[in-house]
Amino acid sequence: MTQTETPATTLSRTLPQTDRTRHSRLREQGSLERSDLEAILDAGFVCHLGVLVDGRPVVVPTVYGRDDTRLYLHGSVASRSLAADPDAPVCVTVTHVDGLVLARSVFEHGVNYRSAMIHGVPRAITDTDEKLAGLRRLTEHATPGQWTYARQPSRKELAATTLLELSLDEASVKIRTGAPDDGDGPDAALGLWAGTLPLTSRWGAPTADPLLPHGIKAPAHIVARAGTRHA
Amino acid sequence: MTQTETPATTLSRTLPQTDRTRHSRLREQGSLERSDLEAILDAGFVCHLGVLVDGRPVVVPTVYGRDDTRLYLHGSVASRSLAADPDAPVCVTVTHVDGLVLARSVFEHGVNYRSAMIHGVPRAITDTDEKLAGLRRLTEHATPGQWTYARQPSRKELAATTLLELSLDEASVKIRTGAPDDGDGPDAALGLWAGTLPLTSRWGAPTADPLLPHGIKAPAHIVARAGTRHA
Repeated sequence: MTQTETPATTLSRTLPQTDRTRHSRLREQGSLERSDLEAILDAGFVCHLGVLVDGRPVVVPTVYGRDDTRLYLHGSVASRSLAADPDAPVCVTVTHVDGLVLARSVFEHGVNYRSAMIHGVPRAITDTDEKLAGLRRLTEHATPGQWTYARQPSRKELAATTLLELSLDEASVKIRTGAPDDGDGPDAALGLWAGTLPLTSRWGAPTADPLLPHGIKAPAHIVARAGTRHA
Repeated sequence: MTQTETPATTLSRTLPQTDRTRHSRLREQGSLERSDLEAILDAGFVCHLGVLVDGRPVVVPTVYGRDDTRLYLHGSVASRSLAADPDAPVCVTVTHVDGLVLARSVFEHGVNYRSAMIHGVPRAITDTDEKLAGLRRLTEHATPGQWTYARQPSRKELAATTLLELSLDEASVKIRTGAPDDGDGPDAALGLWAGTLPLTSRWGAPTADPLLPHGIKAPAHIVARAGTRHA
């Protein structure tokens, strides 16, 4: 998971630590590398957004995109929460499950995963140009090439779209990879099999809308994705 | 996604509606079938748990299991939150992303998914037998066959394990399947390709712990899973 990159911007390549992002459990592998955060965000397109609704946590799946400093989020639930309290904090979590960790003991069982958590107070994007730019990021994040292929939003559609931005300033990353932890402990003598069962997600072949007239082929940027690994 | 089942228990097969589970947006397909809730929970093993920490939402991925009426959750974050306020509500969301919905217009783009959201106040399980039964559910949920294969928790390990239960009484389900919605609208005349790009998750071949002595084979319940579809 470690990546070496030449910093392309003036952003710190190390994530700042706050009370909420500091890793408190040793067995969970925290990362302070910005490249790990970016890799996790770029590997997926659906996050789980936690907001307060009437003082209770509500966790909704929603699509996102990003630039160097901000996450862009679709979300009517978050915007209702934001309308009720413009200073209401949210938490966005993106998780990729890479497989099961099957140890000798149930106690040492676990999951290999990559997860990023972002804390902050989102802002609703209202400026038309800014909203268009954000939606472009979001669309291209999920499906590179689709923004210029599909019909772009009209002014009316833009007005009907809720888009939020959330700073990436306060983020934490946790990654677990590899074998179980009890291979050199007393349970190794049990003679049980131990290892991992990997989980892989792949894009399938594009399925045409049944209403699509014959003769319209899927564009290259969609066809090329079929069979490739996701996340 | 619809399933017809003979009710095996006295539980209502229709989920009760509350202010929080009532579906407020027509374009999202809510389901009130308990079988849909159960199918979504049974298809995965990692949920996103939203808790309040110092009045802010925190969303953590964690493993879960279930019986007919309750969810079982691993979770130190939730238990810390619970210790601070035993009546603190949580929200658990399980989402399976089935693919991208690629419409003629960016505005109609979306995601095919199955998602279940459970609201409630969790309870920490402290009784030893109850904890053992819950951990068995949780272990067998992620890896059927593993509870009897691996070494089961000792009393000391049980004491060190945090297990919560959460009632399934207040749950809502949302499912989106199928083609984009703009196939019979004015954008159909644009002549653009539209359809879906499916996403499928599969179990790979078991990978032995490098510390495993030669000659110990992976058990049948693990080997049989390789290549099968997840979620």
